[in-house]
Amino acid sequence: MAGRAVHEVLAELELVDHHCHGVVTAPLDRPGFEALLTEGDAWPGFSTFDTPVGVAVRRHCAPLLDLAPHAPADAYLARRAALGPREVNGRFLRAARTGVFCVDTGFAPHPVTTPAELAAAAAAPAVAREAMRPEGVPPEGVRPEAAIPQEAVRRGAVAYEVVRLEAVAEAVAARGVDADGYADAFRAAALDAVRRPGVVAVKSVAAYRTGFDLDPARPPDADVTRAARRWLADGGRLADPVLTRHLLWTAVDLGLPLQLHTGFGDNDIRLHRVDPTHLTDWLHLTAGTIPVLLLHCWPYQRQAAYLAAVFEQVYLDVGLTLHHVGPVRARAVLEEALEITPFRKLLYSSDAYGVSEFYWLGALAFRRGLGDLLQDRVDAGELDLPDALRLARRAGADNARRVYRLPDGH
Amino acid sequence: MAGRAVHEVLAELELVDHHCHGVVTAPLDRPGFEALLTEGDAWPGFSTFDTPVGVAVRRHCAPLLDLAPHAPADAYLARRAALGPREVNGRFLRAARTGVFCVDTGFAPHPVTTPAELAAAAAAPAVAREAMRPEGVPPEGVRPEAAIPQEAVRRGAVAYEVVRLEAVAEAVAARGVDADGYADAFRAAALDAVRRPGVVAVKSVAAYRTGFDLDPARPPDADVTRAARRWLADGGRLADPVLTRHLLWTAVDLGLPLQLHTGFGDNDIRLHRVDPTHLTDWLHLTAGTIPVLLLHCWPYQRQAAYLAAVFEQVYLDVGLTLHHVGPVRARAVLEEALEITPFRKLLYSSDAYGVSEFYWLGALAFRRGLGDLLQDRVDAGELDLPDALRLARRAGADNARRVYRLPDGH
Amino acid sequence: MAGRAVHEVLAELELVDHHCHGVVTAPLDRPGFEALLTEGDAWPGFSTFDTPVGVAVRRHCAPLLDLAPHAPADAYLARRAALGPREVNGRFLRAARTGVFCVDTGFAPHPVTTPAELAAAAAAPAVAREAMRPEGVPPEGVRPEAAIPQEAVRRGAVAYEVVRLEAVAEAVAARGVDADGYADAFRAAALDAVRRPGVVAVKSVAAYRTGFDLDPARPPDADVTRAARRWLADGGRLADPVLTRHLLWTAVDLGLPLQLHTGFGDNDIRLHRVDPTHLTDWLHLTAGTIPVLLLHCWPYQRQAAYLAAVFEQVYLDVGLTLHHVGPVRARAVLEEALEITPFRKLLYSSDAYGVSEFYWLGALAFRRGLGDLLQDRVDAGELDLPDALRLARRAGADNARRVYRLPDGH
Repeated sequence: MAGRAVHEVLAELELVDHHCHGVVTAPLDRPGFEALLTEGDAWPGFSTFDTPVGVAVRRHCAPLLDLAPHAPADAYLARRAALGPREVNGRFLRAARTGVFCVDTGFAPHPVTTPAELAAAAAAPAVAREAMRPEGVPPEGVRPEAAIPQEAVRRGAVAYEVVRLEAVAEAVAARGVDADGYADAFRAAALDAVRRPGVVAVKSVAAYRTGFDLDPARPPDADVTRAARRWLADGGRLADPVLTRHLLWTAVDLGLPLQLHTGFGDNDIRLHRVDPTHLTDWLHLTAGTIPVLLLHCWPYQRQAAYLAAVFEQVYLDVGLTLHHVGPVRARAVLEEALEITPFRKLLYSSDAYGVSEFYWLGALAFRRGLGDLLQDRVDAGELDLPDALRLARRAGADNARRVYRLPDGH
Repeated sequence: MAGRAVHEVLAELELVDHHCHGVVTAPLDRPGFEALLTEGDAWPGFSTFDTPVGVAVRRHCAPLLDLAPHAPADAYLARRAALGPREVNGRFLRAARTGVFCVDTGFAPHPVTTPAELAAAAAAPAVAREAMRPEGVPPEGVRPEAAIPQEAVRRGAVAYEVVRLEAVAEAVAARGVDADGYADAFRAAALDAVRRPGVVAVKSVAAYRTGFDLDPARPPDADVTRAARRWLADGGRLADPVLTRHLLWTAVDLGLPLQLHTGFGDNDIRLHRVDPTHLTDWLHLTAGTIPVLLLHCWPYQRQAAYLAAVFEQVYLDVGLTLHHVGPVRARAVLEEALEITPFRKLLYSSDAYGVSEFYWLGALAFRRGLGDLLQDRVDAGELDLPDALRLARRAGADNARRVYRLPDGH
Repeated sequence: MAGRAVHEVLAELELVDHHCHGVVTAPLDRPGFEALLTEGDAWPGFSTFDTPVGVAVRRHCAPLLDLAPHAPADAYLARRAALGPREVNGRFLRAARTGVFCVDTGFAPHPVTTPAELAAAAAAPAVAREAMRPEGVPPEGVRPEAAIPQEAVRRGAVAYEVVRLEAVAEAVAARGVDADGYADAFRAAALDAVRRPGVVAVKSVAAYRTGFDLDPARPPDADVTRAARRWLADGGRLADPVLTRHLLWTAVDLGLPLQLHTGFGDNDIRLHRVDPTHLTDWLHLTAGTIPVLLLHCWPYQRQAAYLAAVFEQVYLDVGLTLHHVGPVRARAVLEEALEITPFRKLLYSSDAYGVSEFYWLGALAFRRGLGDLLQDRVDAGELDLPDALRLARRAGADNARRVYRLPDGH
């Protein structure tokens, strides 16, 4: 008889979502919502509900808005609008049962929640009310320096920050710097950024800018200056290969765990150039320094698993993928991701951005996919139940706590 | 209890096979039949029946020839010979219940059916008899210009044509052209070809000639002339990278949907160079122009799905793969292909060539694989039945009708 | 009702393990054992038992050491130590029911069994005792030249040797040779090596040294000399692309089957450069010469299958992968490997090295994975039982016997 023990443990477990973004706080009309459903664009004549993630939203999100499963898109959006963003976001974020969010604050084309606001919305209602007090205004009787910090420790949910290094570099350029001073200015700005309270990691979107087929060596100063001169003259996003290498090596110097987008994303990606195994030489050169967390990975989850199996510093998740493939395929992707991955090396992330549905869908797909995978192995006698429960807790929370050195309570 | 509704709808649905070839019309001896079973060659000491597709033929084709499932290869071939090609081809083509064939007429190392003959063979017997009337001889009382056109609209089955651009270019070279005139001559010939009645798309086999790791930009005229000079002097197939780019950009100018072979094929392919994500830069440059249909895709079905999810103009199928992996694995391949593919973007094709068994096996593998996938999701409450039925109809027919602007009746 | 016939045939079948290594003969402490469990290293704070293969060891190996399934790692290692290496190795090797080992003798960082010792340990106890007689001391009444040869034909298990060509080349360099003489000296040494009794194949680890993105042509003598000059001056492993090409072409000249490591391995690999489809041009150039056996392949098992389907000389296995993914995922990997692979082209190997657990786990995962795959197809009416049994015997033994021209008895 099929057991439920693994599912029960996962249902209770407060997840550590080690990589996500903010939620849009304003109401979303249909075009706005549909645009956020896809890594593509909203195309005339195509509804983005006509996708695996759209089906998952109608199936698994509608009931949280008091609708029947599979509610039509129109009804779904009407109900969503009627409830309003605060109520909708609260319902999905609380349902996700995420205890810790590590929030990449460097991507926010829309006005979105701060990390503290995200954690507040995810907390239980009573807690959330308290949390809604504006940042910087300490509760009575609390001295200012003890006021709720960036990491916003609250009953039920905590948020930490992940600093996106490309955003730091681009801010340095925007403030004005000459090419000779770029390397120092970027390093100083990055150090400032990571010293803010609540920062637990840095992130790079090198995948979007150059891909990983880069010279792995730390670039000489003269090369960095020359490349900076070109970039500062031309403007635009940081997408120069030398400056990208310099950014990755600066991450090594910072000493915090580095999150790397790999695999699936929007059409800025050249997918074949973001297979993480292109990082192998760089991983050799940086062995013994910082943890490297491969995000998303699909369709290269086996390649990412290989790296996690042979490099001490490498970890992976299948975030973003989980809600896009939906609960019906999350298990299949996790099965591949776990074929050879050491059990300390798999983490959970939603990589949710914009719509709160994705925090819930990511968490649901992860809990169900991993739960089914582990419980079936237990039922078949292939895995001991205590081992399965430990593996579930590790993947869902403990591995991230260890990598990011999060306090035990949270 | 497992439902059957999706299977029933798919069983009734007249498929649009948006990419296939002709059927050999002459009798086939054992070496001839075995050679057509494989993308390899017939090797001494190996029977090509000793393959997944060979097992599928014996299992699923033998009964249509009045034999027991799993009939031995010798018995199968003897019965096939006894019935004769017209009867055999008619049985398999009718069993496939394909309503529309889009036929690539540019590959025919054997004498094969014309598109009209293919459609005729696939029609119900009474219809087929009428259709067997020679082309160009109108039925009594019908004026010549209303005679059955290339697209051969008939009760039960219709055929359209897909123009293979490499064949057009090679015919231009064979007719004689100088390098300066090549670009204009190729364009004129391609325009002539696509203006023939019943032509709905063009196709390129760039995958076989150069792979997709090409400069994505439209090549300057001078480069085309220089490359044409080399090619016209050296002879042989069109396999020059500049001329291949020129061909792909000519396809853009023609304005019809472009079918691209990707992934699995014979050993002319360098598989790692036909991962369709190598087309990303070209897809950016040609966005907003023509639909691009990625054919076959295996083992890159997830990569193709990514492109379909992030580029408005990209569609995919898993043709050729379906009969080679057989009904036992078609679902697994479709599951991967559908992980993130928008439901408007999956099409059906058999990519059958030569033996009529493949039209039947492709259709069977598609109907069963997609039917099982969708029905299981319905049974599990993950997908609403009306959505499942719509998805089945779209993938099996409606998506192709839309892309190729086929008339509704057919 | 699910049948068992395929499993029964596979359980009885004496496997041909066409690629494996020796077993460590000395006792192993915990660090030593844990280091051998992984393709990575033993990392502080991580136990390599915390991996899929570690779970498989505790589940499927513990019972052979008289422990309960899922015995804790400490208990497992204590029992292993108490029994001693000879007893432990004997239990696992006999349980594997391997009739023939083809042993790559070129990788042995630890003192390991010779091929003959491996075969002896795998034989039934009475046979093993006889086999333990020192090499070179013929049993009474047997003339010396009839003494047990390298291939050590014994009741129950036989070992053949696979010559690793990089080891031959490096031995030539170590003995001292000048650059001009390198090509001849390497060829002579390779010929000597393959003429030893019991040698059935050669192997290259080009995957580890350069990857497969090589100029496929046989390098001109002058290039070889120049490259040899550099290498002989610089020392180190043979990792020069020209010398690697020369080595692969020397393998063609030797005329024996060539085993090629592809895909998964330790972190010396750049995984994206060992996708075997990079060998396509070389396979065209060498068609009609030697059989080429693609080892391991994961995660490129579909790519390897493609090559096996379109090149007469190509074969594959999923060794190494089988024990690392364990019995719970072996079927999934085999399903992909078999999607289009002709049934003559799949072989079994364990690629076991060091710990005897891997010979047993590889054999178990293969038998169970292939057995489940085939039996389910038989039960579903998709495959005829006699065909399934033939396919099982071929993959488990007959295909290897044919490629390596092994005598029928063994």
